[in-house]
Amino acid sequence: MIYLDYAAATPVDKKVARAMQPFFAEQFFNPSASYGAAREVRAAYADAKHRLAQTIGARPAEVVLTAGATESINLAILGTATENPSANTVVTTAIEHAAVLRAARTVGAEILPVDERGRIDPDELYLAISDDTRLISVGYANNEIGTVQNIRQIAEIIQEIRAERAERDVRNPLWLHTDASQAAGLLDINVARLGVDLMSLNAGKCYGPKQVGLLYVRAGVEIRPLIHGGGQEMGLRSGTENVAGAVGFALALEIAEKKRKSEAKRLATLRDDLEKYITREFPEAIINGDRKQRLANFLNFSVPRLDAERAVFALDQRGVYLATGSACAANKGTRSHVLTAIGLSPELADGSLRISLGRGTTTAEISQLKPILKEVIKNEQKLS
Amino acid sequence: MIYLDYAAATPVDKKVARAMQPFFAEQFFNPSASYGAAREVRAAYADAKHRLAQTIGARPAEVVLTAGATESINLAILGTATENPSANTVVTTAIEHAAVLRAARTVGAEILPVDERGRIDPDELYLAISDDTRLISVGYANNEIGTVQNIRQIAEIIQEIRAERAERDVRNPLWLHTDASQAAGLLDINVARLGVDLMSLNAGKCYGPKQVGLLYVRAGVEIRPLIHGGGQEMGLRSGTENVAGAVGFALALEIAEKKRKSEAKRLATLRDDLEKYITREFPEAIINGDRKQRLANFLNFSVPRLDAERAVFALDQRGVYLATGSACAANKGTRSHVLTAIGLSPELADGSLRISLGRGTTTAEISQLKPILKEVIKNEQKLS
Repeated sequence: MIYLDYAAATPVDKKVARAMQPFFAEQFFNPSASYGAAREVRAAYADAKHRLAQTIGARPAEVVLTAGATESINLAILGTATENPSANTVVTTAIEHAAVLRAARTVGAEILPVDERGRIDPDELYLAISDDTRLISVGYANNEIGTVQNIRQIAEIIQEIRAERAERDVRNPLWLHTDASQAAGLLDINVARLGVDLMSLNAGKCYGPKQVGLLYVRAGVEIRPLIHGGGQEMGLRSGTENVAGAVGFALALEIAEKKRKSEAKRLATLRDDLEKYITREFPEAIINGDRKQRLANFLNFSVPRLDAERAVFALDQRGVYLATGSACAANKGTRSHVLTAIGLSPELADGSLRISLGRGTTTAEISQLKPILKEVIKNEQKLS
Repeated sequence: MIYLDYAAATPVDKKVARAMQPFFAEQFFNPSASYGAAREVRAAYADAKHRLAQTIGARPAEVVLTAGATESINLAILGTATENPSANTVVTTAIEHAAVLRAARTVGAEILPVDERGRIDPDELYLAISDDTRLISVGYANNEIGTVQNIRQIAEIIQEIRAERAERDVRNPLWLHTDASQAAGLLDINVARLGVDLMSLNAGKCYGPKQVGLLYVRAGVEIRPLIHGGGQEMGLRSGTENVAGAVGFALALEIAEKKRKSEAKRLATLRDDLEKYITREFPEAIINGDRKQRLANFLNFSVPRLDAERAVFALDQRGVYLATGSACAANKGTRSHVLTAIGLSPELADGSLRISLGRGTTTAEISQLKPILKEVIKNEQKLS
């Protein structure tokens, strides 16, 4: 088996699984209970949050644990909505994850186009922000083509607009949110260096447990809960805390951060080698995304006259697991909104494969993959 | 260690933990991906939902998996809100979980009182429902005193009101929701027999994983998602599916249902024995809740001149883990709204202990517990 769909799901790191184990069995206590054994569980949870905060350069009180990135994104977008419906517009991009686009549309979205590499234009962003804009949500690294946005630069634009608003005595808040789900373990996710107000992360994309995520909420950001109840997570997300999940996520993110630079380098080398092979064997192939500003583990390419869905099935039969696009969209038989947004023709969009490498990917695997990929693509091209 | 706080948290059943294991490690694939290995994961998820539905007498398409009961309750209460703000009132009771009360208050709540045993009056419920009422939310079994409501009777009242509304051509919907988190494994949770439209369950309260719950949504109930994105769970709850959690929950609920009758009988015998001991040793003690319509594993009692919080600490030092009330409230030093609603004086409310028995509770444990409980309560009474 050659697994090349790490952007869709990562296996739980063995150390992470081990760290979670006690909280299923002997340390199962409700962290809100008052006896000592429960206080120990509460302390383990607090420690996990402290470590998560530390890894992203935040304070523990700025971290809200959620059941995955989708909830985190919804909390960022819907939770910051104000009572004033005419100052609620969310400016976002055409290539965001469905969670961002659908949540933003429920409150009012202004969608920025991207260029053929999937990058937004900072000047266009500047012009798109009006006094009605309450939130900017720009994904750090795209989950289909791997294009990385310059979040630092966007943060500076927002600073500028805030200063302008203050001068004109416009008091509507303006926040910057980024979905960094795909970035963890590959890019710098320090919130201070990025300059973001809100950031979503997903444990299930960085070798932690699924259905665990977080929302970084910078102190001072006005936000309200989507889920009401016992008042956990500073009142921003009620429900008995997921202690096993938090402990697993904390360790997973620490490991990801520790391995980040060497792993990004290793994966980029493997990816570049594979990319070179594909462009040599298929000179008509198009590499999607930004060749420079791109996640080290991403390779999305389009081949003319290829039915990518059929190619995925044929590869599957040869033990190679990869995707036509994001898992959510792929399974619904709809054309990728990301590939459409970067201007791919329907034919090329339908002939696109997404290869995402990960911690288990080896040089030997890439060598094995090459002839299989070549054979399957050639075969499928012949059939169409 | 004598653990008597099963209402706050249950350990994960060993069989359940084993069933979840493969989905952390080898079968970690995103259930929405298209290769065969992911389809197997998708099938395991579908099978888990099928089994969950079967256990509660529903169809799989009527089951929405959530990250715990709090989210499930919020989805029931906020998701059924209509565009018409004057037809959105939620009728609920004074002794509901904070998730119900807080979510209901955000849309408009009408709070029914309960009697000194914690029971609502069906006639009062009938009168409280106006044409503006959209949802009735009544907990099946209370999480502090264990009082069980007659949900079947409430469902009949609602049928009656629906018929009256139809006659008068009033088209506002009227739904019945119950939080059955504490009931699973002790009471009949068949949705057809109960006659409910919406029902919340919590895996973490029936020896399944924490942060896993479900909302039963009867076909025909008009409901919208709180969390938008990839469109999982029939569009009602987006986010990559928690396959391990679903598989664990399905097995946990099946085991709970299988053991239900014998376990309810066994625990009631142990509880009654302990209750007899307490009323004999402390004739001034008051048993809270309904002596007949009560969960088999619940024993909540108040002793005059007892500081229950201090008693919990003293018991903790002797290896006995129990609670002063619900874990959420207990840790905040606030007085239980449930005990206040049943008319306990502040002194008696502050002198209340909640003992909740579970699968690990044995006759030997209860025998060990008795003298410890007696000594601690006598000591604490002397001190005050």
